[in-house]
Amino acid sequence: MSSSTVYEATASAPVNIAVIKYWGKRDTKLILPINSSLSVTLDQDHLRSTTTSRADPSFEHDQLWLNGKEDEIKAGGRLATCISEMKRLRKELVEDKDPNAPKLSSYKVHIASYNNFPTAAGLASSASGFAALVASLAHLYQLTVSPSVLSLIARQGSGSACRSLFGGFVAWQMGSDPAGTDSLAVEVAPREHWPDMHALICVVSDDKKGTSSTSGMQRTVETSALLQHRIKHVVPERMQLISKAILEKDFDTFARITMADSNQFHAVALDTEPPIFYMNDVSRAIIALIVEFNRLSIANGQGHKAAYTYDAGPNAVIYALEKDIKQIVQLIVSYFPQRPSEFKDVLGLFGTASSDINTLAKVPEGFNEAVAKRFEVGSVKGLIHTRVGDGPRKLSDSESLLAANGLPKTLA
Amino acid sequence: MSSSTVYEATASAPVNIAVIKYWGKRDTKLILPINSSLSVTLDQDHLRSTTTSRADPSFEHDQLWLNGKEDEIKAGGRLATCISEMKRLRKELVEDKDPNAPKLSSYKVHIASYNNFPTAAGLASSASGFAALVASLAHLYQLTVSPSVLSLIARQGSGSACRSLFGGFVAWQMGSDPAGTDSLAVEVAPREHWPDMHALICVVSDDKKGTSSTSGMQRTVETSALLQHRIKHVVPERMQLISKAILEKDFDTFARITMADSNQFHAVALDTEPPIFYMNDVSRAIIALIVEFNRLSIANGQGHKAAYTYDAGPNAVIYALEKDIKQIVQLIVSYFPQRPSEFKDVLGLFGTASSDINTLAKVPEGFNEAVAKRFEVGSVKGLIHTRVGDGPRKLSDSESLLAANGLPKTLA
Repeated sequence: MSSSTVYEATASAPVNIAVIKYWGKRDTKLILPINSSLSVTLDQDHLRSTTTSRADPSFEHDQLWLNGKEDEIKAGGRLATCISEMKRLRKELVEDKDPNAPKLSSYKVHIASYNNFPTAAGLASSASGFAALVASLAHLYQLTVSPSVLSLIARQGSGSACRSLFGGFVAWQMGSDPAGTDSLAVEVAPREHWPDMHALICVVSDDKKGTSSTSGMQRTVETSALLQHRIKHVVPERMQLISKAILEKDFDTFARITMADSNQFHAVALDTEPPIFYMNDVSRAIIALIVEFNRLSIANGQGHKAAYTYDAGPNAVIYALEKDIKQIVQLIVSYFPQRPSEFKDVLGLFGTASSDINTLAKVPEGFNEAVAKRFEVGSVKGLIHTRVGDGPRKLSDSESLLAANGLPKTLA
Repeated sequence: MSSSTVYEATASAPVNIAVIKYWGKRDTKLILPINSSLSVTLDQDHLRSTTTSRADPSFEHDQLWLNGKEDEIKAGGRLATCISEMKRLRKELVEDKDPNAPKLSSYKVHIASYNNFPTAAGLASSASGFAALVASLAHLYQLTVSPSVLSLIARQGSGSACRSLFGGFVAWQMGSDPAGTDSLAVEVAPREHWPDMHALICVVSDDKKGTSSTSGMQRTVETSALLQHRIKHVVPERMQLISKAILEKDFDTFARITMADSNQFHAVALDTEPPIFYMNDVSRAIIALIVEFNRLSIANGQGHKAAYTYDAGPNAVIYALEKDIKQIVQLIVSYFPQRPSEFKDVLGLFGTASSDINTLAKVPEGFNEAVAKRFEVGSVKGLIHTRVGDGPRKLSDSESLLAANGLPKTLA
């Protein structure tokens, strides 16, 4: 190859939202969890991290820019671990086998990453971010390994990142090897299996800084008397039951387990010393709406039609089938008026009528409106409608985030 | 005795606030709990129920008035059970042994009861109310039985009422007899053992109707996977440890266990299907203040100086030693301004300076003020400072709540 060859790859990766929650590590360095977890991958047409990785003999250091701002790669830190593990795979799987392969593993890399959703949305970007990082390096290094193998490396960047290596419905098997070789992600079902699984993200305002999940989960491991019961006796059964529900497209069971596991995760957080709270009064009100919405649909013989779940923050993610999403948006807007134009109707739910979503507010017939009070504009500061999506995508060179000089295009 | 003899007795009984929480019944009719619990009896100089019971051959029905309003005594209901059980004791222990004793057990009773704290304060009045009922009937019937025996009957009116038959620090032993004969209250230590145990009740506004504890606890029994672990493996040890802490006047341990058990009670409520929330954003902010207050005192080598606990509602009860109460009131007022004149300084904490408590707002040196935001006036709508108190008191005839005609004085 000529010296002008650019060794570079760009990939995007999706966000995932767990329905069986990961909370607690048995090994904090290798990021090995104390229980298996399961998530739905969301559509990266709407929410994604995009990452370009380039290897070049002229680069002096490994460097990474996130949203245009350089992020330090600390020696021994999570970013450094992921990059060095990917270089090791390049060397072992490609360079050691093919003497003609360029020695990319010995080159420094420049990496530019970009999230298309604002940090203010309160969505964890570490899962999609580390998945996109690993996916772009895998393409750069021309590795022909399964997403599960890549998930072992993404996991060491951020635990839940391992689940973003697959689309559809994904299990993170906790494994038992102290070295972590069996703590990886596997596909339970692809998006095509159940494409009408949709999600509505309710972005909730919060006036206080929450406990980081990294420190919070270890405090729970150290102090909660209930956590051990959860991981030994509750999660294993739920993993089986929800996998079966997904394979059978049994939304009612999927919803029941999803809500119960969200509740139990927040219960063990509360059972921590000092207690950890992620949900606030707005989160509680959304739960009350979904409980009442389901009470009605169960009374009508249709079972649960919506499932809330909350991660380590006040935002609600509501899973529902495509046919029911419109009614749920109308319900949420009835209690949580939106700033006009804030709702992005990316999936065309309301057609041209959606320019002011508030005019479409409506509660279902028979709904007990007293289950929550009406909140002020801004209490739910955004609604994002999306759906189950695919795994990491390789993007074309034209979508590179790095300029010719090796710096992010936004800086170039 | 002449026909003009009035058979009547008046008694008052205190409120109690549990530090090891009662949540769940193994027998809903007999009110037999699934775990033992432990409480502090509060001073009835400040919060009390007062009850007058009169037996008269001219009365046609058993009747009861609560705060001047007649409350129906439903056949087979909790009030009817308590009254008939007390009549049974009268007959067996007095009339069957002494042929000359008046046959009061065959007379109907009129009962007037009054709580000196408003319902709006959000304090459960059923515990003090049923304790005062049972205590006044015990005096009327001249029963010479221990408070533990009376607690068996009060328990059938309202579970936690059994603990209001004693002053000081009281355990409700769950017992094992299916008939409930060993599910009763016992004194762990009298008030005189640790008189500087004080309490600050923060009355929190709530804009929604909570789940009643009676229905809530049974939903938890039926649906929470974590509750079984709590009752089998957590509560028995905590009962022992906190009893020891009380006997040793070890406030640090008392506080740690009290807060952990409040958190765990709310955790199992959250692990219920659908989830039950009693604490709101104001409750959470009070927890954050107490956690930070304790962090400081621990850093200063003084251990925990305050312990929050929450029952089935958003109100906080903060236990602290007398010497620390003033500082805690000043801290709470800093974040939750009070309507002037609303704070009743019944124990003379602030002397004449207390006419506007807000002027005394102050946070301790080194306190991280960012742990909570400042709330609006009315978020905590009242503060009640009280302390550990004694058990039910027999009052004089002059304090009778019934007029000569057998109706409540407020109606006479």
